[in-house]
Amino acid sequence: MSSPGTVYIIKVGGNVIDNPGFLDSFLADFAAVPALKVLIHGGGKIATRIGDKLGIAANYVNGRRITDAETIDVVTMVYGGLVNKQVVAKLQAHGCNAIGLTGADANIIPAVKRPVKEIDYGFVGDIPTGAVRTAPVKLLLDAGLTPVFSPLTHDGKGQILNTNADTIASSLAVALSEHYTVRLVYCFEKKGVLRNAADDDSVINLINREVYQQLLAEGVLSDGILPKLDNAFAAIESGVKEVLIGHAGDLKRNTTGSVAGTLIC
Amino acid sequence: MSSPGTVYIIKVGGNVIDNPGFLDSFLADFAAVPALKVLIHGGGKIATRIGDKLGIAANYVNGRRITDAETIDVVTMVYGGLVNKQVVAKLQAHGCNAIGLTGADANIIPAVKRPVKEIDYGFVGDIPTGAVRTAPVKLLLDAGLTPVFSPLTHDGKGQILNTNADTIASSLAVALSEHYTVRLVYCFEKKGVLRNAADDDSVINLINREVYQQLLAEGVLSDGILPKLDNAFAAIESGVKEVLIGHAGDLKRNTTGSVAGTLIC
Repeated sequence: MSSPGTVYIIKVGGNVIDNPGFLDSFLADFAAVPALKVLIHGGGKIATRIGDKLGIAANYVNGRRITDAETIDVVTMVYGGLVNKQVVAKLQAHGCNAIGLTGADANIIPAVKRPVKEIDYGFVGDIPTGAVRTAPVKLLLDAGLTPVFSPLTHDGKGQILNTNADTIASSLAVALSEHYTVRLVYCFEKKGVLRNAADDDSVINLINREVYQQLLAEGVLSDGILPKLDNAFAAIESGVKEVLIGHAGDLKRNTTGSVAGTLIC
Repeated sequence: MSSPGTVYIIKVGGNVIDNPGFLDSFLADFAAVPALKVLIHGGGKIATRIGDKLGIAANYVNGRRITDAETIDVVTMVYGGLVNKQVVAKLQAHGCNAIGLTGADANIIPAVKRPVKEIDYGFVGDIPTGAVRTAPVKLLLDAGLTPVFSPLTHDGKGQILNTNADTIASSLAVALSEHYTVRLVYCFEKKGVLRNAADDDSVINLINREVYQQLLAEGVLSDGILPKLDNAFAAIESGVKEVLIGHAGDLKRNTTGSVAGTLIC
């Protein structure tokens, strides 16, 4: 269903990572996507669990986790090592020639440590506009490899940084739009953007700028979905062909021409 | 000093990984090696330290560590994540365009779980002759990237395996000999192969098969060095141009034409 120049940028959230059975079936579906593709995985709760066991207390300010020196080591281990390499090994078992990466690898995502204002977020990396280097990603994709990114970047001075997986996905999607027709797919635990947060079947199938303004005016969207939608519109305005937000279990439908979730365009 | 077709395969041991200051200066020297190059790093004691904190007891049989299910997760985290990505970020800071890998990535090193005989070593991978896939490594090298391998492989069925870093280095060296003139350099904490284990300056500068037989007959070599030498001769007989065993601090001399350690040919 895909023209040769199409790349799917597929982000899968921590909820899927934390559920081994669901992760396995998701990875089987991902491996079967009949096009060039990139996977970006979130971290899940396993980093918190391992941090707890190591005696590293999670530190939150205004509901946002602070990435101190001990925490960046834990997420580097868990996201960049355990989760990423297990995902790669499983994709290999499904015949998908995956290669696990962070944004430090091949200097693909140079980031900037978030400046300290009211809050010092610690070792968190923001991706400057235009910073993503597409040449190595294109090299891998065109050689038939499937890059799998963990939510880590670096500052170019030797420091690994923690970066939101949604942001990595949209940054990669925008950057790769220069070379490919990019479809960005956010996979999470809901069927899509819901008109009524209490009703899992109230999926809104299509959201454009006009509909979005209307939904905002109606006040029906949940707070959690707003950053995803803002990200999605920003990606589209920067060249991404379409953004799909849907359930991780609907990946197959969402990558073969039909739409099971919410299409943003 | 290197012809364009030369690749250095450089293995650095856990003792260097465990010493942050030494590691930094080693990585600066590595970044400056004026040729195509691949780094393979050992794990160091940090995996044991983190395993201890996580309440995972190290399990040894006949002096060899058993890699049980919990231990393979720890080494996947620590070697494949923490150590590998910190090394990559530091090399990037030195202007070396590093890309961190395990043998699972791009299916470069498919291995076989060691068969259970008297001892069940657990999730340990042996590399069958001819198994290493050079195409992805060549793709990266020829694009100006520097692969950095952690001592992990996979079984092709979804399982990460623990594999000796010396073995990964010699397997890669042999496989890449098909495409390049390969120089294999083992960096460790001694100046080379010593005639007298008690005398750090008793380095034997050149060992060929004849000299090796003589040294074995004299019984002067320490037990620890024998597997390294056996590996080295096996590599040379399979196409590797030369093997150098030397101090990590002598990398610069050992990669620019002179020999500070022991040259095996």
